[in-house]
Amino acid sequence: MNQSQVFLDERVRIAAEAFQFLKSTTIAERAVFMHAVADKIEGLGPELLETAHAETALPLPRLTGEKARTVGQWRSYANAVALGIYTEARIDLANSETGKNDIRKFNLGIGPVVVFGASNFPFAFSTAGGDTASAIGAGCPVIVKGHSGHTHTSTMMAEAIAAVIKDFGWPEGVFSHILGANIEGTDTKIGAYLTGHPLVKAVGFTGSYWGGKALFDIANQREEPIPVFAEMGSINPVFAFTHMLEERAEALAKEYATSLTMGVGQFCTNPGVFIAVKGDGLDRFKNALALEIAAIVPSTMLNTGIYEHFEKNKTTLSNQEAVSVIAESGTEAAQGQGRARIISTSADNFLKNQVLSEEVFGPFAVLVEAESEAEVLAIAQQLKGQLTITFAGTKEDVQEHQDVFHAVKDKAGRLLFNGMPTGVEVVYAMQHGGPFPSCTDPRFTSVGPDAVKRFVRPLSFQNWPDEFLPEELKNENTLGISRIVDGSATKTSI
Amino acid sequence: MNQSQVFLDERVRIAAEAFQFLKSTTIAERAVFMHAVADKIEGLGPELLETAHAETALPLPRLTGEKARTVGQWRSYANAVALGIYTEARIDLANSETGKNDIRKFNLGIGPVVVFGASNFPFAFSTAGGDTASAIGAGCPVIVKGHSGHTHTSTMMAEAIAAVIKDFGWPEGVFSHILGANIEGTDTKIGAYLTGHPLVKAVGFTGSYWGGKALFDIANQREEPIPVFAEMGSINPVFAFTHMLEERAEALAKEYATSLTMGVGQFCTNPGVFIAVKGDGLDRFKNALALEIAAIVPSTMLNTGIYEHFEKNKTTLSNQEAVSVIAESGTEAAQGQGRARIISTSADNFLKNQVLSEEVFGPFAVLVEAESEAEVLAIAQQLKGQLTITFAGTKEDVQEHQDVFHAVKDKAGRLLFNGMPTGVEVVYAMQHGGPFPSCTDPRFTSVGPDAVKRFVRPLSFQNWPDEFLPEELKNENTLGISRIVDGSATKTSI
Repeated sequence: MNQSQVFLDERVRIAAEAFQFLKSTTIAERAVFMHAVADKIEGLGPELLETAHAETALPLPRLTGEKARTVGQWRSYANAVALGIYTEARIDLANSETGKNDIRKFNLGIGPVVVFGASNFPFAFSTAGGDTASAIGAGCPVIVKGHSGHTHTSTMMAEAIAAVIKDFGWPEGVFSHILGANIEGTDTKIGAYLTGHPLVKAVGFTGSYWGGKALFDIANQREEPIPVFAEMGSINPVFAFTHMLEERAEALAKEYATSLTMGVGQFCTNPGVFIAVKGDGLDRFKNALALEIAAIVPSTMLNTGIYEHFEKNKTTLSNQEAVSVIAESGTEAAQGQGRARIISTSADNFLKNQVLSEEVFGPFAVLVEAESEAEVLAIAQQLKGQLTITFAGTKEDVQEHQDVFHAVKDKAGRLLFNGMPTGVEVVYAMQHGGPFPSCTDPRFTSVGPDAVKRFVRPLSFQNWPDEFLPEELKNENTLGISRIVDGSATKTSI
Repeated sequence: MNQSQVFLDERVRIAAEAFQFLKSTTIAERAVFMHAVADKIEGLGPELLETAHAETALPLPRLTGEKARTVGQWRSYANAVALGIYTEARIDLANSETGKNDIRKFNLGIGPVVVFGASNFPFAFSTAGGDTASAIGAGCPVIVKGHSGHTHTSTMMAEAIAAVIKDFGWPEGVFSHILGANIEGTDTKIGAYLTGHPLVKAVGFTGSYWGGKALFDIANQREEPIPVFAEMGSINPVFAFTHMLEERAEALAKEYATSLTMGVGQFCTNPGVFIAVKGDGLDRFKNALALEIAAIVPSTMLNTGIYEHFEKNKTTLSNQEAVSVIAESGTEAAQGQGRARIISTSADNFLKNQVLSEEVFGPFAVLVEAESEAEVLAIAQQLKGQLTITFAGTKEDVQEHQDVFHAVKDKAGRLLFNGMPTGVEVVYAMQHGGPFPSCTDPRFTSVGPDAVKRFVRPLSFQNWPDEFLPEELKNENTLGISRIVDGSATKTSI
């Protein structure tokens, strides 16, 4: 399934041409298109689910939910786009007395975007996933590099989008789907080539640190650097405190075990580290957790590569000094099935040995047993950037640990007060993107309608006659969007 | 005036500490602080203006205007911050029936920001300029690397900010002012060192391409890459069309000459290229321009370094093949005074020789004489990213040249319909930031209140009790800001 360079260049060229078309569409037109894509995907029958199940081993109920979520993403992003939230129209009217010019600004698409499909969400973070929806919402053509783990699923999704493009009479280049690893007959990776292509203007990626960082480096070393939003995973620490552990150690252990092993632990918000001060509460939690984990039946992971990485990384962390395995799921597992494991170590060891802070993609966690509250704070302060951090505590715990609360604000995109980080809601208030290395740019999110922001840039028009302005900036506010006119938000026409 | 590494580390460390303080301030508190800085700067008497005049050779009336603009920046950014525009509060309430969580998001500061003062705006783009105001508005401590061209002016501005910090009882680390080139006794540049410092989280820069690009590269090669907004200049092409040249060739020549030589051409929006198809109109424009330029009295440039660069770059471009000098100001000029010059060349030569597209900082322009409209379009398509592009035409010209109009939309941050690009208004609708190489990230502006956006990042809170939420996200909307609650913008409390 390799592609030739001629083929790739042609797809990028038609994307650049399609950008000229998309620039002329209004937010309302793009929203209608996005709703049509949602309808088309919704209409894909059991064949889609069965294909995805065969390719990813993900259970059908999970895939059914993920499909609904994907449809919902297209719809909610479309609604947000139509509201003009990402248009950010600002109009400062002329003043003939002061000589002030008429200046009007709106956001338009940044240009062709390359999107990399993720292994673990064949619908929601892949070919027709959130990156594609947000780029098209922004007015950018998309070139998807489909993930090798679910090529047939991706192709079905790509065909759905292509069919809507045809229905609408939009240029084919609005969306391209590329499969394969290297360019035909070369050692050049297709993803690297696309990221380096001069006509490509931004990149969206969900996957490993090494994959995301490599693309980030290519993008920044181009003659014209381009923005890369790479969501690269995270160990999503859970900090648990005394009062909470006293109150509900066993319940917490059950919630934690469920979150950790859900989807065979293959979520970017999987809670891979649990930190607490030693004591009765923590002992109860440990014992309960060991029982919970032991009762988990190992399931098949997404693919052989991910399974092998999981086994290797699990072993590496388990073999570190001063570490012990405290829980493991099942007595045996078939090839390809991920057995959950919990290791434990001291806070001192965790602080010293950086290997213990590395993400193990799969159902694996490090339980960090601190001697003191000072050690817990030290961990909060030393942590690298995370997608999420959870504060498992009572209100009293928060009051007693304000230092930890304030420290973790600098380390995550989303802070939870109890509950577990898995289950990323697709809402305006979602922030799925934390400080590096969880992401390459913490100023943006890849989940929720705000994901659209990654792919727009502002353009100002000075003194242009109304007839040449984009619909979003004309005197008459036909789109009914909120605009900041002379400093005040209004939906009134001028 | 060199600084030691110990001194620099200490300033960065107290900035990081001050960030913990700034995180606890509300937008309302920061707005009050910013207004106090505006008042303090406004109160600086003639000594400030005279110091700046002595250091930069900029005329007092210009400096008086720039001071007022700088005060206005602090005030307008403060007002925008207080309105909550950059807070972007989003609240999605819990739903116990569906299990939906309570999720609330707002923007907080990204962390300590290093700001590089510019040579050409000792007030508006320097120590207490727009970058500093927008970073503090965002909730970020600032470390200014003052420009060597106006160290006394910078120091006076820094002292004004420091005095307000003291008045407010805020931590000293909210603002630091660093002068000097290299770290004491080393070859390490202070700017490079600060950009690479692990506790620094973003950079704002206004200056040359080489300076900005070097910082961008350092920032992206850090262990934790950080965003750099570098505004690096531009040649700000003016495309002139037949009907307009027929109607007002002489008036246009006068406007162009004035804009080109204003402030001895030392503006980042200086219109350094003029493109039109050959003909009577262009001949009239050329003749008129030559007279206008000849009548300009050369003035002293900002400093010797800038003067020498101007002379060198002017000569380099003038000595290219198939280029002729068509106008020059004054008959002679004293050392340090910039004589304006216009060279002319064919479109074919301009397209082939990239040297002719390089910025010459000072009163210098290339007049490109095209044989055909196709050549004009080719130039529009080949252009690199610009801060501004001007379309000098009648409505009829725009209608006849839609291809050029659409092409230049991809190449600039601000498009003008007639008028000249110098004079960057500080308004919401201003976009001062175009595609690379005019800037490192076209998704942001460095002028206008929207400049604040560069230095914020979103943080989500999931299921937190009201008492621990930042004021911006509590149920009661005490700040009176517009928030998107369950998908709709509202100022109502919950």
